[in-house]
Amino acid sequence: MSTATESYQFGPYKIDPKEVFYATHLSYAMVNLRPLLPGHVLVCPRREVKRFVDLTADETSDLWFTAKKVGSQLERFHSATSLTFAIQDGPQAGQTVPHVHIHIIPRKGGDFEKNDEIYDAIDEKEKELKQKLDLDKERSDRSMEEMAQEADDYRLLFL
Amino acid sequence: MSTATESYQFGPYKIDPKEVFYATHLSYAMVNLRPLLPGHVLVCPRREVKRFVDLTADETSDLWFTAKKVGSQLERFHSATSLTFAIQDGPQAGQTVPHVHIHIIPRKGGDFEKNDEIYDAIDEKEKELKQKLDLDKERSDRSMEEMAQEADDYRLLFL
Repeated sequence: MSTATESYQFGPYKIDPKEVFYATHLSYAMVNLRPLLPGHVLVCPRREVKRFVDLTADETSDLWFTAKKVGSQLERFHSATSLTFAIQDGPQAGQTVPHVHIHIIPRKGGDFEKNDEIYDAIDEKEKELKQKLDLDKERSDRSMEEMAQEADDYRLLFL
Repeated sequence: MSTATESYQFGPYKIDPKEVFYATHLSYAMVNLRPLLPGHVLVCPRREVKRFVDLTADETSDLWFTAKKVGSQLERFHSATSLTFAIQDGPQAGQTVPHVHIHIIPRKGGDFEKNDEIYDAIDEKEKELKQKLDLDKERSDRSMEEMAQEADDYRLLFL
């Protein structure tokens, strides 16, 4: 893998390779503009595909092998004890960027007061992400430096 | 597939084959004791495995091929427009039955006032499911007849 020279598409948006910390020939994993909890990342197919059903068998397997590997490493890295995996597959399920993506979130006891407020939060962040990418990269809560640093840390987990 | 004569294990619980509407050699799909929305079903590996990372590559692929197929059919069957896929992978992510399972929920506009109250609801229902299975099958909101009927309907989608 040589993410530095590759380009990644996320729906209509181009993703800076600095944000990508793991990739296969069919999938990639990136840090989040505004993670809900430490280690909240996204895993996507490289091909721009809107709905889960549109993935080929190879893409489906590879996407989940990638998610399994990434989840396992980030759970350990963040000293978490569980993981949330979720796909909001289509607009009525909360999807705002029309490109299949798995949310992976390392979880610990008490991380959210009411355990799954986290899903409301996913929706909010997706809307913000879209606005941000559309309108004004400068409004981003996290700098590219911060995101690139996080991606650098994670990249070491997959050597 | 001949679900009628097979037995299905869901964590410590034995699942009546009448509740199962689709199965492969590695995975099965069952109706829910108390669905959050019409068509809310669960897809599980046949092998009793607690965490997603513990699935073999074959099990992982088959589980998600099954989920993709089931989601696609039930979305159409229920005239929905999106799908929620979620795994609560471990107790701190809301898992109450220690056996990997994918929640699949057909979604429509306005089905939940605030889009992802649905995830809080998943947690609640998981707790209730566990209580129910542990303590008192008679307290079930749905009769076996109703569940078996739903499973019969769905089974026809996969002939």
